[in-house]
Amino acid sequence: MKVGILGPRGTYSEVAAREEFGDDIDVVPYTLITDVAKAVEDEEVPFGVVPVESLREGSVGETLDALAWLDVKVHSEVVIKIIHHLLGTQDAKMEDIKQVLSHSQALAQCKKFLKKNLPEAELISVDSTAKAAKQISKDEKPFMAAIGSKGLADLYDLKVLEGKLKEDGAENETRFFCLSKKDHESTGDDKTSIFFYTEEDRPGILYEILGKFSKRDINLTKIESRPSKKALGDYLFFIDFEGHRNDPKITQLLENLESKVATLKIIGSYPKRF
Amino acid sequence: MKVGILGPRGTYSEVAAREEFGDDIDVVPYTLITDVAKAVEDEEVPFGVVPVESLREGSVGETLDALAWLDVKVHSEVVIKIIHHLLGTQDAKMEDIKQVLSHSQALAQCKKFLKKNLPEAELISVDSTAKAAKQISKDEKPFMAAIGSKGLADLYDLKVLEGKLKEDGAENETRFFCLSKKDHESTGDDKTSIFFYTEEDRPGILYEILGKFSKRDINLTKIESRPSKKALGDYLFFIDFEGHRNDPKITQLLENLESKVATLKIIGSYPKRF
Repeated sequence: MKVGILGPRGTYSEVAAREEFGDDIDVVPYTLITDVAKAVEDEEVPFGVVPVESLREGSVGETLDALAWLDVKVHSEVVIKIIHHLLGTQDAKMEDIKQVLSHSQALAQCKKFLKKNLPEAELISVDSTAKAAKQISKDEKPFMAAIGSKGLADLYDLKVLEGKLKEDGAENETRFFCLSKKDHESTGDDKTSIFFYTEEDRPGILYEILGKFSKRDINLTKIESRPSKKALGDYLFFIDFEGHRNDPKITQLLENLESKVATLKIIGSYPKRF
Repeated sequence: MKVGILGPRGTYSEVAAREEFGDDIDVVPYTLITDVAKAVEDEEVPFGVVPVESLREGSVGETLDALAWLDVKVHSEVVIKIIHHLLGTQDAKMEDIKQVLSHSQALAQCKKFLKKNLPEAELISVDSTAKAAKQISKDEKPFMAAIGSKGLADLYDLKVLEGKLKEDGAENETRFFCLSKKDHESTGDDKTSIFFYTEEDRPGILYEILGKFSKRDINLTKIESRPSKKALGDYLFFIDFEGHRNDPKITQLLENLESKVATLKIIGSYPKRF
Protein backbone atom coordinates (compact mmCIF):
# COMPACT_ATOMS: atom_id res chain seq x y z
CA MET A 1 0.00 0.00 0.00
CA LYS A 2 1.20 3.48 -0.89
CA VAL A 3 1.54 6.00 1.96
CA GLY A 4 2.49 9.63 1.30
CA ILE A 5 4.87 11.29 3.77
CA LEU A 6 6.57 14.63 4.25
CA GLY A 7 9.92 13.82 2.64
CA PRO A 8 12.67 13.20 2.02
CA ARG A 9 12.92 9.55 3.07
CA GLY A 10 13.81 9.03 6.72
CA THR A 11 11.97 11.98 8.28
CA TYR A 12 10.00 11.46 11.48
CA SER A 13 6.88 11.40 9.23
CA GLU A 14 8.18 8.12 7.81
CA VAL A 15 8.78 6.83 11.35
CA ALA A 16 5.13 7.68 12.14
CA ALA A 17 3.85 6.06 8.92
CA ARG A 18 5.63 2.78 9.77
CA GLU A 19 4.36 2.93 13.34
CA GLU A 20 0.80 3.18 12.01
CA PHE A 21 0.90 0.86 8.99
CA GLY A 22 3.88 -1.43 9.64
CA ASP A 23 7.00 -1.89 7.53
CA ASP A 24 5.24 -3.41 4.54
CA ILE A 25 4.30 -0.08 2.95
CA ASP A 26 5.40 1.75 -0.15
CA VAL A 27 6.50 5.18 1.13
CA VAL A 28 5.96 8.12 -1.27
CA PRO A 29 7.86 11.24 -0.15
CA TYR A 30 6.55 14.75 -0.99
CA THR A 31 8.36 18.08 -0.60
CA LEU A 32 5.62 20.00 1.21
CA ILE A 33 2.91 19.14 3.75
CA THR A 34 0.39 20.66 1.34
CA ASP A 35 1.63 18.29 -1.40
CA VAL A 36 0.99 15.26 0.85
CA ALA A 37 -2.56 16.49 1.55
CA LYS A 38 -3.18 17.19 -2.16
CA ALA A 39 -1.99 13.69 -3.10
CA VAL A 40 -4.59 12.30 -0.66
CA GLU A 41 -7.27 14.65 -2.00
CA ASP A 42 -6.52 13.54 -5.60
CA GLU A 43 -6.40 9.86 -4.53
CA GLU A 44 -2.81 9.44 -5.72
CA VAL A 45 -2.24 7.75 -2.33
CA PRO A 46 -4.89 6.29 0.03
CA PHE A 47 -3.12 7.70 3.14
CA GLY A 48 -0.76 10.58 3.87
CA VAL A 49 1.14 11.18 7.13
CA VAL A 50 1.99 14.73 8.27
CA PRO A 51 3.11 16.31 11.57
CA VAL A 52 0.36 18.36 13.25
CA GLU A 53 1.82 19.38 16.59
CA SER A 54 4.99 19.03 18.63
CA LEU A 55 5.25 19.11 22.38
CA ARG A 56 8.00 21.71 22.13
CA GLU A 57 7.11 23.79 19.13
CA GLY A 58 3.31 23.73 19.07
CA SER A 59 1.07 23.37 16.04
CA VAL A 60 2.24 23.08 12.46
CA GLY A 61 0.42 25.87 10.63
CA GLU A 62 0.78 24.36 7.16
CA THR A 63 -1.03 21.21 8.32
CA LEU A 64 -3.91 23.16 9.87
CA ASP A 65 -4.29 25.17 6.65
CA ALA A 66 -4.37 21.98 4.58
CA LEU A 67 -7.01 20.44 6.89
CA ALA A 68 -9.15 23.56 6.58
CA TRP A 69 -9.09 24.00 2.82
CA LEU A 70 -8.48 20.61 1.17
CA ASP A 71 -10.96 17.76 0.83
CA VAL A 72 -9.22 15.37 3.23
CA LYS A 73 -10.17 13.84 6.59
CA VAL A 74 -8.19 12.70 9.61
CA HIS A 75 -8.27 8.90 9.78
CA SER A 76 -5.99 8.44 12.79
CA GLU A 77 -3.49 10.18 15.05
CA VAL A 78 -0.03 8.81 15.89
CA VAL A 79 2.26 10.07 18.64
CA ILE A 80 5.99 9.51 18.16
CA LYS A 81 8.79 10.04 20.64
CA ILE A 82 11.46 12.09 18.92
CA ILE A 83 14.85 10.48 19.65
CA HIS A 84 17.78 12.25 18.03
CA HIS A 85 21.07 10.58 17.07
CA LEU A 86 24.35 12.12 15.96
CA LEU A 87 25.23 10.58 12.58
CA GLY A 88 28.44 10.65 10.54
CA THR A 89 30.05 9.00 7.52
CA GLN A 90 31.54 5.52 8.02
CA ASP A 91 35.07 6.91 8.59
CA ALA A 92 33.98 9.85 10.79
CA LYS A 93 35.37 10.27 14.30
CA MET A 94 33.77 12.32 17.04
CA GLU A 95 36.91 14.38 17.61
CA ASP A 96 37.17 15.40 13.94
CA ILE A 97 33.64 16.85 13.65
CA LYS A 98 33.81 20.53 12.65
CA GLN A 99 30.22 21.06 11.43
CA VAL A 100 26.84 19.74 12.61
CA LEU A 101 23.86 19.94 10.24
CA SER A 102 20.20 19.53 11.14
CA HIS A 103 16.80 21.18 11.25
CA SER A 104 16.99 24.29 13.44
CA GLN A 105 14.57 22.75 15.97
CA ALA A 106 16.72 19.63 16.34
CA LEU A 107 19.87 21.76 16.79
CA ALA A 108 18.09 23.81 19.46
CA GLN A 109 16.88 20.65 21.20
CA CYS A 110 20.40 19.21 21.40
CA LYS A 111 22.13 22.45 22.40
CA LYS A 112 23.39 21.12 25.75
CA PHE A 113 24.86 17.98 24.19
CA LEU A 114 26.56 20.02 21.46
CA LYS A 115 27.94 22.59 23.88
CA LYS A 116 29.45 19.87 26.03
CA ASN A 117 30.74 17.50 23.38
CA LEU A 118 31.33 19.61 20.28
CA PRO A 119 31.78 23.15 21.62
CA GLU A 120 33.86 24.26 18.61
CA ALA A 121 31.59 22.84 15.89
CA GLU A 122 29.73 25.17 13.56
CA LEU A 123 25.97 24.53 13.66
CA ILE A 124 24.29 24.71 10.25
CA SER A 125 20.50 24.63 9.96
CA VAL A 126 18.92 23.00 6.91
CA ASP A 127 15.29 22.30 5.94
CA SER A 128 14.92 18.86 7.56
CA THR A 129 16.89 16.27 9.52
CA ALA A 130 16.77 14.00 6.48
CA LYS A 131 18.27 16.67 4.21
CA ALA A 132 21.13 17.02 6.68
CA ALA A 133 21.85 13.27 6.54
CA LYS A 134 21.55 13.24 2.75
CA GLN A 135 24.00 16.10 2.36
CA ILE A 136 26.68 14.52 4.54
CA SER A 137 26.37 11.21 2.79
CA LYS A 138 26.49 12.84 -0.65
CA ASP A 139 29.59 14.83 0.14
CA GLU A 140 31.23 11.94 2.03
CA LYS A 141 32.68 14.43 4.46
CA PRO A 142 34.04 12.84 7.66
CA PHE A 143 34.27 16.22 9.42
CA MET A 144 30.51 16.79 9.16
CA ALA A 145 27.76 15.23 11.32
CA ALA A 146 23.96 15.30 11.14
CA ILE A 147 21.33 15.08 13.87
CA GLY A 148 18.22 12.99 13.15
CA SER A 149 16.41 9.67 13.56
CA LYS A 150 18.31 6.38 13.68
CA GLY A 151 16.63 5.24 10.47
CA LEU A 152 18.57 7.88 8.55
CA ALA A 153 21.81 5.97 9.18
CA ASP A 154 20.61 2.96 7.16
CA LEU A 155 19.02 5.07 4.44
CA TYR A 156 22.09 7.18 3.78
CA ASP A 157 24.84 4.72 4.73
CA LEU A 158 25.90 6.63 7.82
CA LYS A 159 26.92 5.42 11.26
CA VAL A 160 25.68 6.46 14.70
CA LEU A 161 28.41 8.53 16.38
CA GLU A 162 26.29 9.00 19.50
CA GLY A 163 22.88 7.45 20.15
CA LYS A 164 19.82 8.85 21.92
CA LEU A 165 21.06 12.39 22.47
CA LYS A 166 19.76 13.71 25.75
CA GLU A 167 17.59 16.66 24.87
CA ASP A 168 17.38 19.77 26.99
CA GLY A 169 14.52 19.51 29.46
CA ALA A 170 11.67 17.04 29.11
CA GLU A 171 11.17 14.44 26.41
CA ASN A 172 9.87 15.52 23.06
CA GLU A 173 6.88 14.00 21.32
CA THR A 174 5.26 14.85 18.03
CA ARG A 175 1.68 14.14 17.00
CA PHE A 176 1.04 13.12 13.39
CA PHE A 177 -2.22 12.85 11.47
CA CYS A 178 -2.88 10.07 8.94
CA LEU A 179 -5.00 11.77 6.29
CA SER A 180 -7.43 9.94 4.06
CA LYS A 181 -10.60 10.61 2.03
CA LYS A 182 -12.68 9.21 4.90
CA ASP A 183 -12.36 9.46 8.65
CA HIS A 184 -12.51 6.50 11.08
CA GLU A 185 -15.59 4.61 12.24
CA SER A 186 -16.54 4.84 15.89
CA THR A 187 -14.50 2.76 18.39
CA GLY A 188 -16.15 4.03 21.58
CA ASP A 189 -13.07 6.05 22.60
CA ASP A 190 -12.59 8.71 19.96
CA LYS A 191 -11.74 12.32 19.27
CA THR A 192 -13.14 14.69 16.68
CA SER A 193 -11.40 17.65 15.02
CA ILE A 194 -13.34 20.58 13.58
CA PHE A 195 -12.58 24.05 12.33
CA PHE A 196 -14.93 26.99 12.19
CA TYR A 197 -15.00 30.60 11.15
CA THR A 198 -17.40 33.19 12.45
CA GLU A 199 -17.83 36.49 10.63
CA GLU A 200 -19.14 38.22 13.74
CA ASP A 201 -16.50 40.25 15.54
CA ARG A 202 -18.02 40.97 18.92
CA PRO A 203 -17.18 40.19 22.54
CA GLY A 204 -18.35 36.80 23.60
CA ILE A 205 -18.84 34.92 20.33
CA LEU A 206 -16.13 32.37 21.15
CA TYR A 207 -17.51 32.23 24.68
CA GLU A 208 -20.97 31.34 23.36
CA ILE A 209 -19.54 28.63 21.14
CA LEU A 210 -17.49 27.07 23.95
CA GLY A 211 -20.66 27.16 26.03
CA LYS A 212 -22.21 24.63 23.66
CA PHE A 213 -19.41 22.20 24.54
CA SER A 214 -19.52 22.94 28.24
CA LYS A 215 -23.30 22.53 28.44
CA ARG A 216 -23.03 19.02 26.99
CA ASP A 217 -20.02 18.14 29.17
CA ILE A 218 -17.82 17.58 26.09
CA ASN A 219 -14.11 17.79 26.92
CA LEU A 220 -12.02 20.02 24.65
CA THR A 221 -8.54 18.58 24.16
CA LYS A 222 -7.21 21.48 22.06
CA ILE A 223 -8.15 24.92 20.85
CA GLU A 224 -6.04 26.80 18.37
CA SER A 225 -6.48 29.99 16.37
CA ARG A 226 -5.06 30.48 12.87
CA PRO A 227 -5.05 33.66 10.79
CA SER A 228 -7.93 33.71 8.31
CA LYS A 229 -5.54 35.48 5.90
CA LYS A 230 -8.22 38.07 5.22
CA ALA A 231 -6.97 40.65 7.73
CA LEU A 232 -4.58 40.72 10.67
CA GLY A 233 -6.64 39.95 13.77
CA ASP A 234 -9.19 37.81 11.91
CA TYR A 235 -9.02 34.16 12.94
CA LEU A 236 -10.22 30.64 12.23
CA PHE A 237 -10.56 28.27 15.17
CA PHE A 238 -9.52 24.63 15.33
CA ILE A 239 -10.99 22.55 18.13
CA ASP A 240 -10.30 18.93 19.08
CA PHE A 241 -12.70 17.30 21.52
CA GLU A 242 -13.59 13.88 22.91
CA GLY A 243 -16.30 11.85 21.19
CA HIS A 244 -17.19 10.59 17.69
CA ARG A 245 -19.26 12.65 15.24
CA ASN A 246 -21.78 9.77 15.18
CA ASP A 247 -22.37 9.90 18.97
CA PRO A 248 -25.86 11.42 19.45
CA LYS A 249 -24.54 14.13 21.81
CA ILE A 250 -21.86 15.17 19.29
CA THR A 251 -24.22 15.06 16.28
CA GLN A 252 -26.55 17.40 18.14
CA LEU A 253 -23.68 19.75 19.07
CA LEU A 254 -22.46 19.92 15.47
CA GLU A 255 -25.94 20.67 14.11
CA ASN A 256 -26.30 23.40 16.67
CA LEU A 257 -22.87 24.86 15.85
CA GLU A 258 -23.55 24.85 12.13
CA SER A 259 -26.42 27.30 12.54
CA LYS A 260 -24.20 29.61 14.62
CA VAL A 261 -21.04 30.00 12.52
CA ALA A 262 -20.32 31.09 8.95
CA THR A 263 -18.16 28.06 8.09
CA LEU A 264 -17.89 24.70 9.85
CA LYS A 265 -15.80 21.75 8.68
CA ILE A 266 -15.74 18.38 10.41
CA ILE A 267 -12.14 17.36 9.82
CA GLY A 268 -12.75 13.87 11.13
CA SER A 269 -13.35 11.49 14.01
CA TYR A 270 -10.60 9.01 14.91
CA PRO A 271 -9.49 6.74 17.79
CA LYS A 272 -8.10 8.63 20.78
CA ARG A 273 -4.43 7.76 21.25
CA PHE A 274 -3.45 10.14 24.08
CA MET B 1 19.49 54.79 21.51
CA LYS B 2 20.23 51.08 21.18
CA VAL B 3 17.45 48.85 19.84
CA GLY B 4 17.85 45.06 19.67
CA ILE B 5 16.44 43.29 16.60
CA LEU B 6 16.21 39.77 15.23
CA GLY B 7 19.24 39.85 12.93
CA PRO B 8 21.12 39.93 10.72
CA ARG B 9 20.90 43.60 9.67
CA GLY B 10 18.16 44.33 7.14
CA THR B 11 15.48 41.89 8.33
CA TYR B 12 11.87 43.07 8.57
CA SER B 13 12.49 43.41 12.35
CA GLU B 14 14.87 46.27 11.51
CA VAL B 15 12.22 47.80 9.24
CA ALA B 16 9.76 47.64 12.18
CA ALA B 17 12.32 49.11 14.62
CA ARG B 18 12.89 52.13 12.31
CA GLU B 19 9.14 52.56 11.83
CA GLU B 20 8.74 52.76 15.61
CA PHE B 21 11.83 54.69 16.67
CA GLY B 22 12.93 56.55 13.52
CA ASP B 23 16.23 56.24 11.66
CA ASP B 24 18.36 57.73 14.42
CA ILE B 25 18.81 54.47 16.34
CA ASP B 26 21.72 52.17 16.96
CA VAL B 27 20.51 48.75 15.75
CA VAL B 28 21.90 45.72 17.62
CA PRO B 29 21.23 42.45 15.76
CA TYR B 30 20.81 39.15 17.66
CA THR B 31 20.72 35.63 16.23
CA LEU B 32 17.59 34.37 18.00
CA ILE B 33 14.30 35.91 19.14
CA THR B 34 15.09 34.59 22.63
CA ASP B 35 18.43 36.44 22.55
CA VAL B 36 16.66 39.75 21.78
CA ALA B 37 14.29 39.21 24.72
CA LYS B 38 17.17 38.24 27.03
CA ALA B 39 19.10 41.38 26.07
CA VAL B 40 16.04 43.42 27.09
CA GLU B 41 15.67 41.43 30.31
CA ASP B 42 19.35 42.03 31.19
CA GLU B 43 19.07 45.72 30.21
CA GLU B 44 21.76 45.42 27.54
CA VAL B 45 19.30 47.33 25.32
CA PRO B 46 16.28 49.43 26.42
CA PHE B 47 14.10 48.07 23.59
CA GLY B 48 13.99 44.92 21.45
CA VAL B 49 11.86 44.36 18.35
CA VAL B 50 10.65 40.86 17.44
CA PRO B 51 7.95 39.46 15.11
CA VAL B 52 4.93 38.06 16.96
CA GLU B 53 2.44 37.17 14.26
CA SER B 54 2.11 37.18 10.49
CA LEU B 55 -1.11 37.45 8.54
CA ARG B 56 -0.12 34.41 6.50
CA GLU B 57 1.80 32.20 8.87
CA GLY B 58 0.19 32.88 12.25
CA SER B 59 1.95 33.30 15.57
CA VAL B 60 5.67 33.03 16.14
CA GLY B 61 6.02 30.41 18.88
CA GLU B 62 9.50 31.49 20.00
CA THR B 63 8.20 35.00 20.74
CA LEU B 64 5.23 33.72 22.76
CA ASP B 65 7.58 31.49 24.79
CA ALA B 66 9.92 34.42 25.49
CA LEU B 67 6.97 36.60 26.59
CA ALA B 68 5.78 33.87 28.94
CA TRP B 69 9.06 33.06 30.66
CA LEU B 70 11.33 36.10 30.53
CA ASP B 71 11.01 39.26 32.60
CA VAL B 72 10.05 41.57 29.70
CA LYS B 73 6.93 43.57 28.84
CA VAL B 74 5.31 44.67 25.61
CA HIS B 75 5.77 48.43 25.22
CA SER B 76 4.19 48.81 21.77
CA GLU B 77 3.00 46.92 18.71
CA VAL B 78 3.99 47.77 15.12
CA VAL B 79 2.37 46.43 11.97
CA ILE B 80 4.53 46.31 8.84
CA LYS B 81 3.48 45.58 5.26
CA ILE B 82 5.83 42.96 3.92
CA ILE B 83 6.95 44.04 0.44
CA HIS B 84 9.39 41.68 -1.25
CA HIS B 85 11.97 42.65 -3.88
CA LEU B 86 14.14 40.50 -6.12
CA LEU B 87 17.76 41.51 -5.49
CA GLY B 88 20.96 40.68 -7.38
CA THR B 89 24.62 41.74 -7.58
CA GLN B 90 25.40 44.95 -9.51
CA ASP B 91 26.23 43.06 -12.70
CA ALA B 92 23.33 40.58 -12.47
CA LYS B 93 20.76 40.30 -15.25
CA MET B 94 17.30 38.82 -14.88
CA GLU B 95 17.85 36.35 -17.73
CA ASP B 96 21.04 34.94 -16.14
CA ILE B 97 19.49 34.07 -12.77
CA LYS B 98 19.82 30.33 -12.08
CA GLN B 99 19.23 30.28 -8.29
CA VAL B 100 16.92 32.25 -5.99
CA LEU B 101 17.67 32.32 -2.26
CA SER B 102 15.33 33.43 0.51
CA HIS B 103 13.46 32.39 3.64
CA SER B 104 11.10 29.52 2.77
CA GLN B 105 8.05 31.69 3.61
CA ALA B 106 9.20 34.44 1.22
CA LEU B 107 9.83 31.88 -1.55
CA ALA B 108 6.36 30.43 -1.00
CA GLN B 109 4.81 33.90 -1.05
CA CYS B 110 6.44 34.76 -4.41
CA LYS B 111 5.75 31.40 -6.05
CA LYS B 112 3.60 32.83 -8.83
CA PHE B 113 6.15 35.52 -9.76
CA LEU B 114 8.95 32.95 -9.79
CA LYS B 115 6.98 30.45 -11.84
CA LYS B 116 6.20 33.09 -14.46
CA ASN B 117 9.54 34.92 -14.60
CA LEU B 118 12.17 32.41 -13.48
CA PRO B 119 10.57 29.02 -14.15
CA GLU B 120 13.96 27.26 -14.48
CA ALA B 121 15.60 28.77 -11.39
CA GLU B 122 16.46 26.55 -8.42
CA LEU B 123 14.81 27.80 -5.21
CA ILE B 124 17.05 27.57 -2.14
CA SER B 125 15.65 28.24 1.33
CA VAL B 126 17.91 29.80 3.95
CA ASP B 127 17.28 30.99 7.53
CA SER B 128 16.28 34.60 6.75
CA THR B 129 15.84 37.01 3.85
CA ALA B 130 18.86 38.94 5.14
CA LYS B 131 21.08 35.84 5.12
CA ALA B 132 20.09 35.27 1.49
CA ALA B 133 21.17 38.81 0.55
CA LYS B 134 24.38 38.50 2.55
CA GLN B 135 25.33 35.25 0.86
CA ILE B 136 24.85 36.57 -2.67
CA SER B 137 26.81 39.69 -1.92
CA LYS B 138 29.62 37.72 -0.29
CA ASP B 139 29.93 35.31 -3.19
CA GLU B 140 29.48 38.06 -5.81
CA LYS B 141 27.57 35.64 -7.93
CA PRO B 142 25.62 37.31 -10.74
CA PHE B 143 23.59 34.15 -11.43
CA MET B 144 22.07 34.19 -7.94
CA ALA B 145 19.22 36.40 -6.68
CA ALA B 146 17.68 36.95 -3.23
CA ILE B 147 14.16 37.89 -2.18
CA GLY B 148 13.76 40.37 0.69
CA SER B 149 13.15 43.96 1.76
CA LYS B 150 14.43 46.89 -0.32
CA GLY B 151 16.73 47.97 2.52
CA LEU B 152 18.84 44.86 1.98
CA ALA B 153 20.01 46.26 -1.39
CA ASP B 154 21.80 49.19 0.30
CA LEU B 155 23.13 47.13 3.17
CA TYR B 156 24.72 44.47 0.98
CA ASP B 157 25.49 46.53 -2.15
CA LEU B 158 22.92 44.78 -4.30
CA LYS B 159 20.54 46.15 -6.91
CA VAL B 160 16.80 45.69 -7.28
CA LEU B 161 16.14 43.38 -10.25
CA GLU B 162 12.39 43.58 -9.77
CA GLY B 163 10.56 45.73 -7.20
CA LYS B 164 7.41 45.05 -5.18
CA LEU B 165 6.89 41.43 -6.16
CA LYS B 166 3.19 40.68 -6.38
CA GLU B 167 2.51 38.05 -3.79
CA ASP B 168 0.03 35.26 -4.27
CA GLY B 169 -3.35 36.25 -2.87
CA ALA B 170 -3.89 39.09 -0.44
CA GLU B 171 -1.30 41.45 0.99
CA ASN B 172 0.91 40.26 3.79
CA GLU B 173 1.38 42.09 7.05
CA THR B 174 3.44 41.19 10.09
CA ARG B 175 2.90 42.37 13.64
CA PHE B 176 5.96 43.11 15.76
CA PHE B 177 6.27 43.72 19.50
CA CYS B 178 8.67 46.29 20.97
CA LEU B 179 9.80 44.70 24.22
CA SER B 180 11.01 46.68 27.20
CA LYS B 181 11.30 46.33 30.99
CA LYS B 182 8.09 48.36 31.38
CA ASP B 183 4.88 48.44 29.41
CA HIS B 184 3.16 51.60 28.12
CA GLU B 185 1.09 54.10 30.10
CA SER B 186 -2.60 54.38 29.27
CA THR B 187 -3.56 56.34 26.13
CA GLY B 188 -7.31 55.69 26.26
CA ASP B 189 -7.19 53.30 23.27
CA ASP B 190 -5.09 50.35 24.34
CA LYS B 191 -4.71 46.61 24.27
CA THR B 192 -3.43 44.24 26.94
CA SER B 193 -1.68 40.88 26.45
CA ILE B 194 -1.74 38.19 29.13
CA PHE B 195 -0.88 34.54 29.38
CA PHE B 196 -2.26 32.03 31.83
CA TYR B 197 -1.99 28.40 32.73
CA THR B 198 -4.62 26.37 34.52
CA GLU B 199 -3.74 23.05 36.06
CA GLU B 200 -7.34 21.86 35.99
CA ASP B 201 -8.13 19.63 33.04
CA ARG B 202 -11.90 19.51 32.93
CA PRO B 203 -14.59 20.48 30.43
CA GLY B 204 -15.49 24.11 30.63
CA ILE B 205 -12.50 25.70 32.37
CA LEU B 206 -11.61 27.85 29.34
CA TYR B 207 -15.31 28.57 28.93
CA GLU B 208 -15.52 29.90 32.49
CA ILE B 209 -12.48 32.09 31.98
CA LEU B 210 -13.80 33.55 28.73
CA GLY B 211 -17.05 34.19 30.59
CA LYS B 212 -15.22 36.70 32.77
CA PHE B 213 -14.36 38.71 29.66
CA SER B 214 -17.81 38.37 28.12
CA LYS B 215 -19.57 39.41 31.34
CA ARG B 216 -17.59 42.67 31.40
CA ASP B 217 -18.06 43.24 27.66
CA ILE B 218 -14.30 43.14 27.07
CA ASN B 219 -13.41 42.40 23.45
CA LEU B 220 -10.86 39.62 22.84
CA THR B 221 -8.67 40.41 19.84
CA LYS B 222 -6.70 37.17 19.94
CA ILE B 223 -6.63 33.79 21.66
CA GLU B 224 -3.82 31.35 21.12
CA SER B 225 -2.77 28.11 22.75
CA ARG B 226 0.87 27.03 23.16
CA PRO B 227 2.18 23.69 24.43
CA SER B 228 3.10 23.86 28.12
CA LYS B 229 6.00 21.49 27.27
CA LYS B 230 4.96 19.32 30.23
CA ALA B 231 2.86 16.84 28.24
CA LEU B 232 1.31 16.68 24.79
CA GLY B 233 -2.20 18.09 25.10
CA ASP B 234 -1.33 20.41 28.00
CA TYR B 235 -1.56 24.09 27.02
CA LEU B 236 -0.85 27.66 28.02
CA PHE B 237 -3.21 30.34 26.73
CA PHE B 238 -2.29 33.76 25.37
CA ILE B 239 -5.06 36.32 25.17
CA ASP B 240 -5.02 39.87 23.76
CA PHE B 241 -7.94 42.11 24.61
CA GLU B 242 -9.00 45.74 24.40
CA GLY B 243 -8.33 48.03 27.37
CA HIS B 244 -5.42 49.02 29.63
CA ARG B 245 -4.51 47.11 32.79
CA ASN B 246 -5.09 50.34 34.75
CA ASP B 247 -8.72 50.68 33.55
CA PRO B 248 -10.92 49.80 36.57
CA LYS B 249 -12.88 47.18 34.59
CA ILE B 250 -9.64 45.45 33.50
CA THR B 251 -8.00 45.66 36.94
CA GLN B 252 -11.06 43.94 38.38
CA LEU B 253 -11.00 41.25 35.68
CA LEU B 254 -7.31 40.53 36.25
CA GLU B 255 -7.76 40.21 40.03
CA ASN B 256 -10.63 37.85 39.46
CA LEU B 257 -8.64 35.77 36.95
CA GLU B 258 -5.65 35.53 39.26
CA SER B 259 -7.66 33.63 41.85
CA LYS B 260 -8.92 31.21 39.16
CA VAL B 261 -5.73 30.10 37.37
CA ALA B 262 -2.44 28.56 38.49
CA THR B 263 -0.25 31.10 36.68
CA LEU B 264 -1.13 34.51 35.27
CA LYS B 265 1.30 36.95 33.67
CA ILE B 266 0.36 40.42 32.48
CA ILE B 267 2.63 40.76 29.46
CA GLY B 268 1.78 44.42 29.06
CA SER B 269 -0.63 47.16 28.01
CA TYR B 270 0.21 49.23 24.93
CA PRO B 271 -1.48 51.54 22.41
CA LYS B 272 -3.82 49.75 20.00
CA ARG B 273 -2.49 50.05 16.44
CA PHE B 274 -4.95 47.83 14.53
